[in-house]
Amino acid sequence: MSHTLSRLAAVIEARKPANGGDPEKSYVSRLFDKGDDAILKKIGEEATETVMAAKDARVSGEASKLLYECADLWFHSMIMLAQFGLTPDDVLNELARREGVSGIEEKANRKLAEREQAERRD
Amino acid sequence: MSHTLSRLAAVIEARKPANGGDPEKSYVSRLFDKGDDAILKKIGEEATETVMAAKDARVSGEASKLLYECADLWFHSMIMLAQFGLTPDDVLNELARREGVSGIEEKANRKLAEREQAERRD
Amino acid sequence: MSHTLSRLAAVIEARKPANGGDPEKSYVSRLFDKGDDAILKKIGEEATETVMAAKDARVSGEASKLLYECADLWFHSMIMLAQFGLTPDDVLNELARREGVSGIEEKANRKLAEREQAERRD
Amino acid sequence: MSHTLSRLAAVIEARKPANGGDPEKSYVSRLFDKGDDAILKKIGEEATETVMAAKDARVSGEASKLLYECADLWFHSMIMLAQFGLTPDDVLNELARREGVSGIEEKANRKLAEREQAERRD
Repeated sequence: MSHTLSRLAAVIEARKPANGGDPEKSYVSRLFDKGDDAILKKIGEEATETVMAAKDARVSGEASKLLYECADLWFHSMIMLAQFGLTPDDVLNELARREGVSGIEEKANRKLAEREQAERRD
Repeated sequence: MSHTLSRLAAVIEARKPANGGDPEKSYVSRLFDKGDDAILKKIGEEATETVMAAKDARVSGEASKLLYECADLWFHSMIMLAQFGLTPDDVLNELARREGVSGIEEKANRKLAEREQAERRD
Repeated sequence: MSHTLSRLAAVIEARKPANGGDPEKSYVSRLFDKGDDAILKKIGEEATETVMAAKDARVSGEASKLLYECADLWFHSMIMLAQFGLTPDDVLNELARREGVSGIEEKANRKLAEREQAERRD
Repeated sequence: MSHTLSRLAAVIEARKPANGGDPEKSYVSRLFDKGDDAILKKIGEEATETVMAAKDARVSGEASKLLYECADLWFHSMIMLAQFGLTPDDVLNELARREGVSGIEEKANRKLAEREQAERRD
């Protein structure tokens, strides 16, 4: 796995209050302390901010804010993964599995086929 | 960078119609062909599906669907990055930069400080 | 309640398969037939499309697409309300209640106060 | 239009700083003062909270939180409408137009037809 992702996952894990993280001092510990909904709400927020930053990038011709917001989205995804006992390595393995077995588009194509079948009924 | 992310980014890049990707055959090429809004809409969709899968995981006690949806969210983030001339390596560098310089919570703490200052006015 | 909202709520209610709606012919019946997740996913999608349309409105100087997407968001909200046994009248009553008792900002101010208290701990 | 929506729209309009609203005292004035992105971010947030509340409603068997979050989503939609020179009346007219002309499913069916045509190409 990426060294950055694994280092970051270790830092996030250490921020869990059960592992000694202090909600008074750490933003990540505070999110863990608040629980599922606070973390999941951040996924919705960061996704919205990413979409807005992409729209802005087309106007400004400058993508640095988009990069920043996408990093935020991935960062909060990693907090969510940790909250549910998962790691970025699990995500990378899932992505590699799709790519390896039948191409990364396997799932998208399956979904599309299902939808086409569903809509053929109409 | 992670081998998985770099391989996947290369596959995605090759799917751009300008690089020979065929929208008739490839889901990713089709998204590139449709343009910004189709790609950004997927970010909102996948974020919502991730949140729903996390909620389901607490009921079922089983996180595999959450892993799947999070992989989808990252996968479509990578299509968005490619659409705007960015790479997952850029995201990892941004995450490493935050961690390296002043801790991964730098940005979150800055945001918090700004908000506290803003709300102190109230 | 608004005549439009009440008429629309009646049409939506009649589209439930249990009330004779036909998923083969009606988009709304099909959503009811698919269930909670299909309906909730639309909330996330329409919210994202609304945000994108608002961004576009600033560039084009033209708000008709934003109006269209906001109508879509409210329309799918009404399908969700029906799915959970609620009506737009319930929503209007909740909005009136906030306005009546202590001003429409009651809740927002309470949330803000809670957040300020939470962050004062930091 | 619904009396509640029109009264609420008038209150929101009066909260604009240009109309005398005070960002120091009013949550709505503060949102207007912060501008488009702050308002649009709330659309994404409230949509996410609505989806989470719906998921919770299935577990608890109790829909009051969902009603509350949906009211929040509509309330912040109205702030967005005001920010872009639109009113809830415009939204109701758009919904009535769809219903009147060719049924409320006109647009959904058109979208579906377009998608089917698009995917028939595949």
